[in-house]
Amino acid sequence: MSGFNENDGILVIGATNRLDTLDEALLRPGRFDRQVEIGLPDINARKHILSLYTRSKPIADDVDIDALAKSTVYFSGAMLENLINEAAILTANNNKSIIDQESIDKAFYTVIAGAPKEDRSYITEKDKEITAYHEAGHALMTKLVLPNHYISKVTIIPSVRGAGGFNLSIPKDTQFQNKSDILANIMMFLGGRAAEDLIFGMDNITTGASNDIQKASTMIYEYINKFGMDNDLGLFSMEILEHNSDSKLISKCRSEINKLYKETYDLLLENKNILINIANELLDKESLNSDDIARIFNSSY
Amino acid sequence: MSGFNENDGILVIGATNRLDTLDEALLRPGRFDRQVEIGLPDINARKHILSLYTRSKPIADDVDIDALAKSTVYFSGAMLENLINEAAILTANNNKSIIDQESIDKAFYTVIAGAPKEDRSYITEKDKEITAYHEAGHALMTKLVLPNHYISKVTIIPSVRGAGGFNLSIPKDTQFQNKSDILANIMMFLGGRAAEDLIFGMDNITTGASNDIQKASTMIYEYINKFGMDNDLGLFSMEILEHNSDSKLISKCRSEINKLYKETYDLLLENKNILINIANELLDKESLNSDDIARIFNSSY
Amino acid sequence: MSGFNENDGILVIGATNRLDTLDEALLRPGRFDRQVEIGLPDINARKHILSLYTRSKPIADDVDIDALAKSTVYFSGAMLENLINEAAILTANNNKSIIDQESIDKAFYTVIAGAPKEDRSYITEKDKEITAYHEAGHALMTKLVLPNHYISKVTIIPSVRGAGGFNLSIPKDTQFQNKSDILANIMMFLGGRAAEDLIFGMDNITTGASNDIQKASTMIYEYINKFGMDNDLGLFSMEILEHNSDSKLISKCRSEINKLYKETYDLLLENKNILINIANELLDKESLNSDDIARIFNSSY
Amino acid sequence: MSGFNENDGILVIGATNRLDTLDEALLRPGRFDRQVEIGLPDINARKHILSLYTRSKPIADDVDIDALAKSTVYFSGAMLENLINEAAILTANNNKSIIDQESIDKAFYTVIAGAPKEDRSYITEKDKEITAYHEAGHALMTKLVLPNHYISKVTIIPSVRGAGGFNLSIPKDTQFQNKSDILANIMMFLGGRAAEDLIFGMDNITTGASNDIQKASTMIYEYINKFGMDNDLGLFSMEILEHNSDSKLISKCRSEINKLYKETYDLLLENKNILINIANELLDKESLNSDDIARIFNSSY
Amino acid sequence: MSGFNENDGILVIGATNRLDTLDEALLRPGRFDRQVEIGLPDINARKHILSLYTRSKPIADDVDIDALAKSTVYFSGAMLENLINEAAILTANNNKSIIDQESIDKAFYTVIAGAPKEDRSYITEKDKEITAYHEAGHALMTKLVLPNHYISKVTIIPSVRGAGGFNLSIPKDTQFQNKSDILANIMMFLGGRAAEDLIFGMDNITTGASNDIQKASTMIYEYINKFGMDNDLGLFSMEILEHNSDSKLISKCRSEINKLYKETYDLLLENKNILINIANELLDKESLNSDDIARIFNSSY
Amino acid sequence: MSGFNENDGILVIGATNRLDTLDEALLRPGRFDRQVEIGLPDINARKHILSLYTRSKPIADDVDIDALAKSTVYFSGAMLENLINEAAILTANNNKSIIDQESIDKAFYTVIAGAPKEDRSYITEKDKEITAYHEAGHALMTKLVLPNHYISKVTIIPSVRGAGGFNLSIPKDTQFQNKSDILANIMMFLGGRAAEDLIFGMDNITTGASNDIQKASTMIYEYINKFGMDNDLGLFSMEILEHNSDSKLISKCRSEINKLYKETYDLLLENKNILINIANELLDKESLNSDDIARIFNSSY
Repeated sequence: MSGFNENDGILVIGATNRLDTLDEALLRPGRFDRQVEIGLPDINARKHILSLYTRSKPIADDVDIDALAKSTVYFSGAMLENLINEAAILTANNNKSIIDQESIDKAFYTVIAGAPKEDRSYITEKDKEITAYHEAGHALMTKLVLPNHYISKVTIIPSVRGAGGFNLSIPKDTQFQNKSDILANIMMFLGGRAAEDLIFGMDNITTGASNDIQKASTMIYEYINKFGMDNDLGLFSMEILEHNSDSKLISKCRSEINKLYKETYDLLLENKNILINIANELLDKESLNSDDIARIFNSSY
Repeated sequence: MSGFNENDGILVIGATNRLDTLDEALLRPGRFDRQVEIGLPDINARKHILSLYTRSKPIADDVDIDALAKSTVYFSGAMLENLINEAAILTANNNKSIIDQESIDKAFYTVIAGAPKEDRSYITEKDKEITAYHEAGHALMTKLVLPNHYISKVTIIPSVRGAGGFNLSIPKDTQFQNKSDILANIMMFLGGRAAEDLIFGMDNITTGASNDIQKASTMIYEYINKFGMDNDLGLFSMEILEHNSDSKLISKCRSEINKLYKETYDLLLENKNILINIANELLDKESLNSDDIARIFNSSY
Repeated sequence: MSGFNENDGILVIGATNRLDTLDEALLRPGRFDRQVEIGLPDINARKHILSLYTRSKPIADDVDIDALAKSTVYFSGAMLENLINEAAILTANNNKSIIDQESIDKAFYTVIAGAPKEDRSYITEKDKEITAYHEAGHALMTKLVLPNHYISKVTIIPSVRGAGGFNLSIPKDTQFQNKSDILANIMMFLGGRAAEDLIFGMDNITTGASNDIQKASTMIYEYINKFGMDNDLGLFSMEILEHNSDSKLISKCRSEINKLYKETYDLLLENKNILINIANELLDKESLNSDDIARIFNSSY
Repeated sequence: MSGFNENDGILVIGATNRLDTLDEALLRPGRFDRQVEIGLPDINARKHILSLYTRSKPIADDVDIDALAKSTVYFSGAMLENLINEAAILTANNNKSIIDQESIDKAFYTVIAGAPKEDRSYITEKDKEITAYHEAGHALMTKLVLPNHYISKVTIIPSVRGAGGFNLSIPKDTQFQNKSDILANIMMFLGGRAAEDLIFGMDNITTGASNDIQKASTMIYEYINKFGMDNDLGLFSMEILEHNSDSKLISKCRSEINKLYKETYDLLLENKNILINIANELLDKESLNSDDIARIFNSSY
Repeated sequence: MSGFNENDGILVIGATNRLDTLDEALLRPGRFDRQVEIGLPDINARKHILSLYTRSKPIADDVDIDALAKSTVYFSGAMLENLINEAAILTANNNKSIIDQESIDKAFYTVIAGAPKEDRSYITEKDKEITAYHEAGHALMTKLVLPNHYISKVTIIPSVRGAGGFNLSIPKDTQFQNKSDILANIMMFLGGRAAEDLIFGMDNITTGASNDIQKASTMIYEYINKFGMDNDLGLFSMEILEHNSDSKLISKCRSEINKLYKETYDLLLENKNILINIANELLDKESLNSDDIARIFNSSY
Repeated sequence: MSGFNENDGILVIGATNRLDTLDEALLRPGRFDRQVEIGLPDINARKHILSLYTRSKPIADDVDIDALAKSTVYFSGAMLENLINEAAILTANNNKSIIDQESIDKAFYTVIAGAPKEDRSYITEKDKEITAYHEAGHALMTKLVLPNHYISKVTIIPSVRGAGGFNLSIPKDTQFQNKSDILANIMMFLGGRAAEDLIFGMDNITTGASNDIQKASTMIYEYINKFGMDNDLGLFSMEILEHNSDSKLISKCRSEINKLYKETYDLLLENKNILINIANELLDKESLNSDDIARIFNSSY
């Protein structure tokens, strides 16, 4: 850390849940220059956390830690700790000596009721399914049209990165985006909606794509107006004028984004079995990493 | 309450009629985190209140508490108390020993005249009928197109939730709205106007639907422009541009909302007898709960 | 009055000519909650005021109080008092013992010249005739299309309510306006211009209708855009957009208001004799009340 | 004056050349409530002023006061005084005993050179002729289409009322303007330009009409949009909308004002001899009053 | 000067190169009311300045003051002084006793290098030629279409009045501009561009006309919209509306200014020999006065 | 330096990497009036820097300074120094006496990891190729259409002048740009994109041209609207209006810029071998100067 002797071999770690309020100077290179977001634990993580907290406590045989991990979607580590503690108190109050499934069930509702409102909304199975296919759509499009991107994480566990779930993919390090890259990125953004459309039908497409639509709209607008990449409209940028669009530009943005959506949909349709495999594994594991996606992708052919 | 020992078993309740002026910090989870609106009493509640205040007073046989409850629509609890007190004073002034209907009738006008202006406007029978059908329209559309919504209350008694009356329905807990949900919600909002149109005729539709129209207009605009759910216009969002609409978008919003109104009207027409039954029971009881609506709905087939 | 014992039987009255500068808290229910505007006296009132001020003064036989009342249109009570006083002074200065018509005539111009500018503009006979027909048009339309409205006063004496004259009508107490009500209200507002048009001819219509046009324009705009009552444009409200009108909406507003004007004109034409009777009686009495209007209306058939 | 005893018989007069900087309270009725603008003297006034200043000075026979008055257009009273004083000094310096024309001629240029810049611009004969016809156009149109207006002054001497010259006409006291009045007023405003057009030809119309055009444009806009007096567009006022004009309204304003200009031109053409007579007398006398205009108007038939 | 005795016979002169920062009160009539801009010296002035500075110094016969004056375009008086001083120092350093051409040549580059950047840009022969024809175009158009204007100076030496060069012409003193005057003024402003077009060809027209275009655009806009001088659009001024132009007005401005340009070009074409003569003499003398222009103009026929 | 004796012969040099924060007064002529940007070293400079730092250190024979220079693109001088120091430390730690390639390789990654983030992004071979052709496109267009421009530097090393690389060309000193100059300048700006298009194909054009497009768009807009150089639209400038563009102007800007792009592409196509030669030499040497470009240009015929 800047100001300390470089050879000290000391790593300084800080924690905050208000990253936005920190003085930016603290985050400059040489200071706290790496940021690691600790999101909600996925099913696997929850299993580990539960094991940790039950390790030194008497647990009945009927308690299935795996099932408990599965049913505690959206629980934070603190909530899991609380769950086990409440179950222990209930057990003591009932003069029982071993924490059984019944105590855990009761504790479950106590914990939920005491949690702040925004942590209380259960994700329904339907929501999980929608999120799974939506994220699978993004992930599959990434593999299909942005093969150089490294997908580091696909998850249906919400975080600051995405209310439903999110894809974390890292583009190949490069200075410039080219025309194909931009179009492929738009298709990647449209992949979530297209997957919903393909699997659940047009009438069941959801509002979950609104951020994707906002981003894709901005990209197609810049593609045409800022980067001059549209063959018809050419190179004049309206940014220099008082009004930054005209009917030709709007009309072109509409037709281009809709053409790309059609292509996205068709690509997902061709690879529907992979899409289903990714979504199913997401529903099962909640989070997938690069290797998972690659494995599913490859084994699906 | 946050700051107190959680096991105290003490429930802290506060009352205010200026909710908007409270420090938001007071309303955070762990503090005053549940809000219960105490609206005007409906006919049933007024009957109970009148019984309470007349319990220890000599009441003549000709006084019909049920009728009195019926005729005191829009009276608050304080006004009902005042009514009985004034009647007792009049009785004493006239050297009568028993509060009779005549004293109550006189007291009625004294109370009305002394009430603040905004509480003085009598609801006419026609207003009640319009409100009843308007709210019945919302309620019936909820049952028909949003079957997963739980209708907790339908009333023609005004409150902060609605000047005429209101429907309080709770959507099934879910993260996303889908295309059908949004369209169904718009139809639910249009149900009030459509019921007026169906029952009283086009020339008698009222200004009571202006809030519904505002909400439905916002929803259809977002449906098309923010959520990209319209088949014709597709996915380009104009939010990123300086001007957030063009003639195509406006034209589409108009045609879509009008198509949905037509469907709403037709659905209510098909179920006109249920609509009438709900409205009639609303006129009778002033407020209906979930079970009432379900009963009327089921028995109407 | 709030803060005083309710049984005191004391009525507190205050007077101001700067109502707009009072602390609003003073005007709340339970405080000064009734406001009575004391406008300029009409012919009848002037007769009473003149009688009062001349009661104890020697007045010549040639002085005609009725004629004097007629010729002092727009005089306030203070100006009428001043008129008699000035006449008395002139009489004394001329060593006359009785106030004669000549002294009064001279005093008349002295009073006019000394009055503040805004009180000095004489109303011409033509102005009075225009105002009379304009107000008669509003009053007759109220009777014809808003039969439930109670017309409390029609006058050609200006006040804060209207520079020329005004109609004071009270709508039947109701929570909602319906489509017919709104259209009828617009026709009532257009009645003043239509009466001018009908009686004096298109070339003689005056600027006196500009407030009416402003109100009617706002109403037709809200009728179409806020209340969704137009059959063609339907239910989409543009209030949610950055620009609150488009050419279709403007075009519709124009055609609707013009259609209503045509209907208003035709209705007045059909009832031209009543219009003339109301205007004539207004010219004679300056102010008419509900009974006057009803009498003229009924006797005109 | 308010605050003084009314019978004092004292008239308080104040003088300022910065009327705009006075506290408005000073100008209220009962205080300084009459304002008299003292403009530049016209030829007649200059003759009187010169007579006054030369009364007690020895003046040579060759000095023609009338000619001097004629040649000192735009001179203020102070400049005229200065002129005579300078001539006297020159006379003394040259050891002459009588002020002769030569001294006056030299003094003339001394006075001009020493005057502030904005008083130094000589009015050319051409300018005077243009101004004379322009003002004659306004005056003649007033007589022709606004016969009830009282023309109190027509002049080609500039003042705060008008850079070139001005017409001061007082409309008949009335509360309302009617449609014909407004159109006639617009024609009166267009009369200046039309007179220039008629007499000097289209190529020689000047910028002197820009204020008239501004006023006429405002009037035709209000005629159509605020007063609803146009037969085609009817009664909808766009003032309530965010944008206060549309192409229909602009197009209508253009066609109406141009139609009125045509009528104005034709009327002046029919009365060209009167126009010429007014202009000639204006060139001669610089200012005309009501009687002058009436005389020329009547004798021109 | 105001405040001093007028007969003192003292003339107060001040110098500044920051006229814009002076208190305006200092510049009022009677104070510093004449402003004389001292621009860069032209060839003639430079010759005089060089003569002055070389008067008392030993100068070699090979030094040609005329040629030196010619090659020091854009030199200020201070730079000329510096040039001679540097040459003298170089001469002394080299133990020479007479300032020869070689020393002057070396001093020339020393002076240039030491001058502030904005004075260092050499005017190329091509620039001088363009400026000469551009200014000749303005001057010739002034003679042709504004014969009453007095051309006081035409120069290709830049100053605060114009980056390239400038025309200083004084319009005949008059109160009003007429239609022909405005059109002629626009043509005068377009004369610079038209001359470039005519002499160097369309592909070589320069950005030097941008100020002229701005002024001409403003004038044609006011000609049509403020002064109502266009036969087609007539008299309605859009200044009173929220948006001060519409497509008709823009279209008209374009067609009118382009028509005037065509006329300007044709007029210069007809008088091409005069244009060439003016430009040539400008290239030779750098500045021309009224008599020069008149002489060239007259002798060119 | 101003304030010091001019003959001191002392040159004052200052260094900053925050030029933007200096008081402007410091940069005035006579003070720090020359600015020299010290950018990142190119391959040649790196070779010299590495030689300097390795001069007094024991280096193994297998260390190839040329190869090391090649692989350290984007390294600053400090980073190169650091690289050699780290390698020396590693050598010492490993008890080796000579710095070998292995130590240098390890040191390489240490240096990269410790560098501030913005210096860490490696330029890929593909990026270098794109940048090389993009800059070659600008350089070649400069030679072809702006032959009077002096190209002082073409480089693919980023600096504050350009993220990818940049062309530094100095236009011939002149006061005015003419029509051809502006069009040629636009073509020069479009040369980067056109080169990408020609060499890599339309689908691979990059976002690297966005600044060029912005500049070219501004230039074509001013060409048409400010300088009046378009034959169709002519001379009217919309800058004086509230809205500074209309559909005709936008349409014209689009068609003109697209026509110029076509011409640019065709010119590069005709000279494709020169383009390739420049790009190849840029990839080899990273920076080219005026002579390099001239040599390639001439030898390519």
